[in-house]
Amino acid sequence: MTASKQGGLADVIAGQTGISTVGKEGKGLSYRGYSIHDLARFASFEETAYLLLYGWLPTDEQLSQFQQQLADSRELPPSLARILELLPADTHPMDVLRTGFSALASYEPESENRPALDIAIRLIGITPSVLLYWHHYQQSGMRIDTRGKGGGIADHFLGLLHQKEPALQHIKALDVSLTLYAEHEFNASTFAARVTASTLSDFYSAITTGVGTLRGPLHGGANEAAMELIERYSDPEEAEAGVLEALQQKQLIMGFGHRVYSVSDPRSDVIKEWSLALSEQAGDRTLYDISERIEQVMLREKKLFPNLDFYSASAYFHMGIPTSLFTPVFVLSRLTGWSAHIMEQRARNRIIRPSADYVGPEPQVWLPLEER
Amino acid sequence: MTASKQGGLADVIAGQTGISTVGKEGKGLSYRGYSIHDLARFASFEETAYLLLYGWLPTDEQLSQFQQQLADSRELPPSLARILELLPADTHPMDVLRTGFSALASYEPESENRPALDIAIRLIGITPSVLLYWHHYQQSGMRIDTRGKGGGIADHFLGLLHQKEPALQHIKALDVSLTLYAEHEFNASTFAARVTASTLSDFYSAITTGVGTLRGPLHGGANEAAMELIERYSDPEEAEAGVLEALQQKQLIMGFGHRVYSVSDPRSDVIKEWSLALSEQAGDRTLYDISERIEQVMLREKKLFPNLDFYSASAYFHMGIPTSLFTPVFVLSRLTGWSAHIMEQRARNRIIRPSADYVGPEPQVWLPLEER
Repeated sequence: MTASKQGGLADVIAGQTGISTVGKEGKGLSYRGYSIHDLARFASFEETAYLLLYGWLPTDEQLSQFQQQLADSRELPPSLARILELLPADTHPMDVLRTGFSALASYEPESENRPALDIAIRLIGITPSVLLYWHHYQQSGMRIDTRGKGGGIADHFLGLLHQKEPALQHIKALDVSLTLYAEHEFNASTFAARVTASTLSDFYSAITTGVGTLRGPLHGGANEAAMELIERYSDPEEAEAGVLEALQQKQLIMGFGHRVYSVSDPRSDVIKEWSLALSEQAGDRTLYDISERIEQVMLREKKLFPNLDFYSASAYFHMGIPTSLFTPVFVLSRLTGWSAHIMEQRARNRIIRPSADYVGPEPQVWLPLEER
Repeated sequence: MTASKQGGLADVIAGQTGISTVGKEGKGLSYRGYSIHDLARFASFEETAYLLLYGWLPTDEQLSQFQQQLADSRELPPSLARILELLPADTHPMDVLRTGFSALASYEPESENRPALDIAIRLIGITPSVLLYWHHYQQSGMRIDTRGKGGGIADHFLGLLHQKEPALQHIKALDVSLTLYAEHEFNASTFAARVTASTLSDFYSAITTGVGTLRGPLHGGANEAAMELIERYSDPEEAEAGVLEALQQKQLIMGFGHRVYSVSDPRSDVIKEWSLALSEQAGDRTLYDISERIEQVMLREKKLFPNLDFYSASAYFHMGIPTSLFTPVFVLSRLTGWSAHIMEQRARNRIIRPSADYVGPEPQVWLPLEER
């Protein structure tokens, strides 16, 4: 028996992967050998998604075909649209995705004719439809045409959300953000999806596990928590005072530090640049300046660096994405990583079933009801 | 870094638990210190569920109140009934439960006023309703009254399924089976549910993870696979020949052996007795005799013992439970263990995030699309 000394399986190697490296030299990240910086700078999210799912960068023809498949995956089965209409407006949007993906299995179950890779593409394509059909229907009663007009995923998502053509800079910023969030080795949601896949359950079950696990504030929910933090203050001075007080009260400040990075999160600088660009375009640097001050305070007081979630908050704000949809956007991106991991788990499967250290009661003698 | 040598986290201690011990001396199982044999013999499933959820055996008054809460949890929210009507007849019944539980979160989300324990009881109470409302509606168009008439869970389940008062012996056998399936330490579905809970996600997400993970044929799906095996043969001689041939072809025979038991599965003898009793009551020992012969062959040829799933198959058959509902019955039972583990994980939480051994490509130089 071996055990994780710190709990939470920290530093325990749970298996092999060829999909990504994280935290090399305390700060690296690569997908299939390509550095996250190259991908964020040169690749579209669709190219990144292809790389993760297939293992190599697509040729021009492969990419066109992949983009077409994604665009063809945007329509909702009519019964799924009815189900989304039955989920009330105050439903947590992650619950909408979890239920929507789970229900899709009823209409398009995994089979020999509908293998994992096809379902992965279908899910990436349909995610904006599931989320935003529900969103608009519950906000205003409008039944949107989920086919949309946008060519790429970022374009399509923002177009469906705002029901108008998005600004080019917003499209580009969201595209980069989707690439940054796409894959992160054995993070909790991916690992949980692999545990589900390891019983040879179906693809939808593993993805549903991923969504439910990402939902937590210690994981995907952190970008929403970061937004709530920076929104609390009206200027950098107020933010500094507020964060210092929160630290004194030993409150957890979301969006800082990371289990697998010791030096910095390589994704943070990329999204920080975009947050600045969108702030300047909007002519309002308030949230950016507040964020930067909090970054300085956290470095000075706790030696903690911002992770991807922190500057994503202000960037998403400037794209007009409601805070409650931040984590669902994370799903749209991470579906690629989850799917790659589910297929990798299956390719060399062993059921994931650890042991436990028993700390409960000693053997008890049975007591009949009347003697208790 | 520590690593599991065999993969699948076998023999890696992933955390502490006070809920159950499995595999002590290769064959033991206890819930909260009480041996599974005492529980199966003396406790009702409701008493067992209470023990798992609260940590102690209920007094007469506590048990009455608990039973009342369960009985009060049987009605479907009207929108959930509509959703179940939208899931077609060929939906995998585990997908029905996964979607049903996921959707219930929309109507009855976790909150300060609706804490984990209340949701656990609600889910146990509503499971027969979700499953069997869908089942009857899709089989015959009938909208059943999910409140039913039966007092206990086993009674209620069989009454809803068959739409008539069940035989006493069937009620007792199902009750025992529910106790046997209730809890099993860090099995894959429970462990996956704990990973989901470890991000501080909501209770429904963790349960949905449990359902999706149990669905796999290497886990909960094994009882259905065992049924398909024993149904293949018309008598013990044919079964012996068939299993010998399957073994020669290196096929996996479901329902035998177990990662955490080396000597025997302590639950198997209990359900085997019930399988025999129900066979004799039905005046047809065919399936039982076939099962017993396969048990002998597996012991002789592979030194493998039957696990709980194996004789559960013939026992459920005699209760008139369709094979496709075997794993959902497992859910009805295991909800108790999952719920106890989710609450235990939360009480002393650390996010479950292991590491991986990278075996993928070396660092790659970026290649623009036109050069690929």
